[in-house]
Amino acid sequence: MSSAWLLPEHLADVLPHEARRLEELRRTLLDAARSFGHELVMPPLAEHLDSLLSGSGESLDLMTFKLVDQLSGRTLGVRADTTPQVARIDAHLLNRAGVTRLCYCGPVLHALPAGAYATREPLQFGAETYGHAGLEADLEIQDLAIDCLGRAGLAGLTMDLGDARIVTALLDATGVAARDRAAWVAAMVAKDRPELLRLIANTVAEGTDPVLTQALLALPELYGGLSVLDQARQQLPALPAIEAALHDLAWLAGHLQASYTDLTIGFDLADLSGYAYYTGPRFALYGNGSREALLRGGRYDAVGQIFGRSRPAVGFSLDLKSVVAHISLDGRRAAIRAPWNEEAALRAAIRHLRVQGETVTCVLPGHEHEADEFDCDRELVEVNGQWVVCAR
Amino acid sequence: MSSAWLLPEHLADVLPHEARRLEELRRTLLDAARSFGHELVMPPLAEHLDSLLSGSGESLDLMTFKLVDQLSGRTLGVRADTTPQVARIDAHLLNRAGVTRLCYCGPVLHALPAGAYATREPLQFGAETYGHAGLEADLEIQDLAIDCLGRAGLAGLTMDLGDARIVTALLDATGVAARDRAAWVAAMVAKDRPELLRLIANTVAEGTDPVLTQALLALPELYGGLSVLDQARQQLPALPAIEAALHDLAWLAGHLQASYTDLTIGFDLADLSGYAYYTGPRFALYGNGSREALLRGGRYDAVGQIFGRSRPAVGFSLDLKSVVAHISLDGRRAAIRAPWNEEAALRAAIRHLRVQGETVTCVLPGHEHEADEFDCDRELVEVNGQWVVCAR
Repeated sequence: MSSAWLLPEHLADVLPHEARRLEELRRTLLDAARSFGHELVMPPLAEHLDSLLSGSGESLDLMTFKLVDQLSGRTLGVRADTTPQVARIDAHLLNRAGVTRLCYCGPVLHALPAGAYATREPLQFGAETYGHAGLEADLEIQDLAIDCLGRAGLAGLTMDLGDARIVTALLDATGVAARDRAAWVAAMVAKDRPELLRLIANTVAEGTDPVLTQALLALPELYGGLSVLDQARQQLPALPAIEAALHDLAWLAGHLQASYTDLTIGFDLADLSGYAYYTGPRFALYGNGSREALLRGGRYDAVGQIFGRSRPAVGFSLDLKSVVAHISLDGRRAAIRAPWNEEAALRAAIRHLRVQGETVTCVLPGHEHEADEFDCDRELVEVNGQWVVCAR
Repeated sequence: MSSAWLLPEHLADVLPHEARRLEELRRTLLDAARSFGHELVMPPLAEHLDSLLSGSGESLDLMTFKLVDQLSGRTLGVRADTTPQVARIDAHLLNRAGVTRLCYCGPVLHALPAGAYATREPLQFGAETYGHAGLEADLEIQDLAIDCLGRAGLAGLTMDLGDARIVTALLDATGVAARDRAAWVAAMVAKDRPELLRLIANTVAEGTDPVLTQALLALPELYGGLSVLDQARQQLPALPAIEAALHDLAWLAGHLQASYTDLTIGFDLADLSGYAYYTGPRFALYGNGSREALLRGGRYDAVGQIFGRSRPAVGFSLDLKSVVAHISLDGRRAAIRAPWNEEAALRAAIRHLRVQGETVTCVLPGHEHEADEFDCDRELVEVNGQWVVCAR
């Protein structure tokens, strides 16, 4: 009983000071998404495990808490990521033929933390566009992503671009089996050259053109500014998927730079962090000097496949708790202090102020000498029979 | 695979039309609570089972999904009710000596549905005041509850008042054991006279004064208007707890009626619905002709006990999904339709409108003839080299 107040590791209460900032950020992000025409949806916290894990690979499975449904005896998962749920909604519930823009904001739960200091309960916000295969949808979603972080107050934004097709094309061409690809992705993200050499020795098909294995080794070095695309054209084989990816990245970077002259644009052709469902251009946003990406997104055209409707899809997500740690929102909460009194005129004055958006805290009898939790810069006092707001 | 899109029973996606209304209601309720000085907190979705179930009785245990924490091997619960978590925050994290007003809004998950049509994922909003034992805190929280439903657009509000001390005093005086009390509560709520007679025969101590058993039988009939309090004074024994309860209910009803002349006030002295942690005056609010209570609250002074700090506490909670079903919010979403075009002047015009709060949906190339999901009553057109908003 003495430890009943201890929380499990990597789970924490959000106390008033931070909760207020999270709520402000939540509204800012949802308003930004709405202004782009993204409609809010709220998938359930838990659903059947097979639909939660659709096409998302092993990493999401390991992150997902499992529980038993007493009503059906089936295994449910608590969502660790919202994108597969939104794909399900697009595929089955809305079932629209044309472009569908959706957004969501809610908690997800991770069975294992994503890092040494990561929360197991990110507050995930995301926006997604279904039904348009062209790059215009990629650009629009990147535009929204930049707008979201800008409205949140983040400055010095850096966008890293990559494309899932490049690694996939090389692994296909070198005959790497599906079971070995998670190890490849991990080694690419870590830029772990000894491990890449080991993987080449052990997982690449015999007789593979050395140009291809050299390309796999070169990939982790292909990061930096716009010149990376030229280097990639020289160092990577001219496979159709790679040529398409490099073309698309140049197109996106050109348009973004024209719209956002102060945006820093970089490339990291080996960065495959996040879930395994990406199929095209990918992006990550950094701001206010953050070391970790604050937002990740890209194209994941196959995500609705398990639901029988593989539609073009592009989107991004972020964790509000990570973003809020990088912004300074006004922490002050101005309020008006009022006495506790049953007089109708006082009750009416308090009610009027509250409806106008003011915070009015009544001092309950016996608590006159307690410190205010709010910044009560004004108080309600009776002057000549009228209740008026005065500075304290 | 073909059924991957089927959701578990009593769990559902919230689609755009309803999600928008839920989000509006969420903001309305949080703004109302803030205007009363209630600070937002966000406890985690899952925590150790023993702290989640503190003092809440068996019904909450049965409602709680259990899962295993891989990090510790301990059993966690997904919260089915937020109040015990907020009590923990008051007791340990804030640890303030004076009055603390808190509020929260987030999903809870129920292992079993509360009724035939109930969702297993209510979106729970609640407000609580810790640290004041006087009736003023009860009145203030009832004031906030009425304000919340009023701001949400509910009319014809009815408040039912009761007091947990009455049944408790009678069960104490008749020597009913703790293990039998859940059955008593269920029979009282159901106003099930045969079951009450059975319970009197089987669970009341021998030699009990027949005045007490008669009072237990009378209790389910004590519902209705203000006259119920007079009847109760006649039919119930003059135990100190019962006299205090009847005094407090009369005081609260008098003050509420003075503040809200169009509020219908009723009493139901046997209504013990909800969780078992109540210890004093209780209330339920109905509106817009709802058959079920839309909001329940009351005093639960013992709720922080397991955390080593039993503070006076009063509060209420509601499920936004139930409330939103009883209100008519504007479902229309006005928007501006814009062409997809890379021209800087158009991009700037769109960005300007979005920051002003407008929804601007760009028609992606090839989708010119699709129906708009939004009510695009205006469009952005080029007139003499300027992008202007015109009616469609």
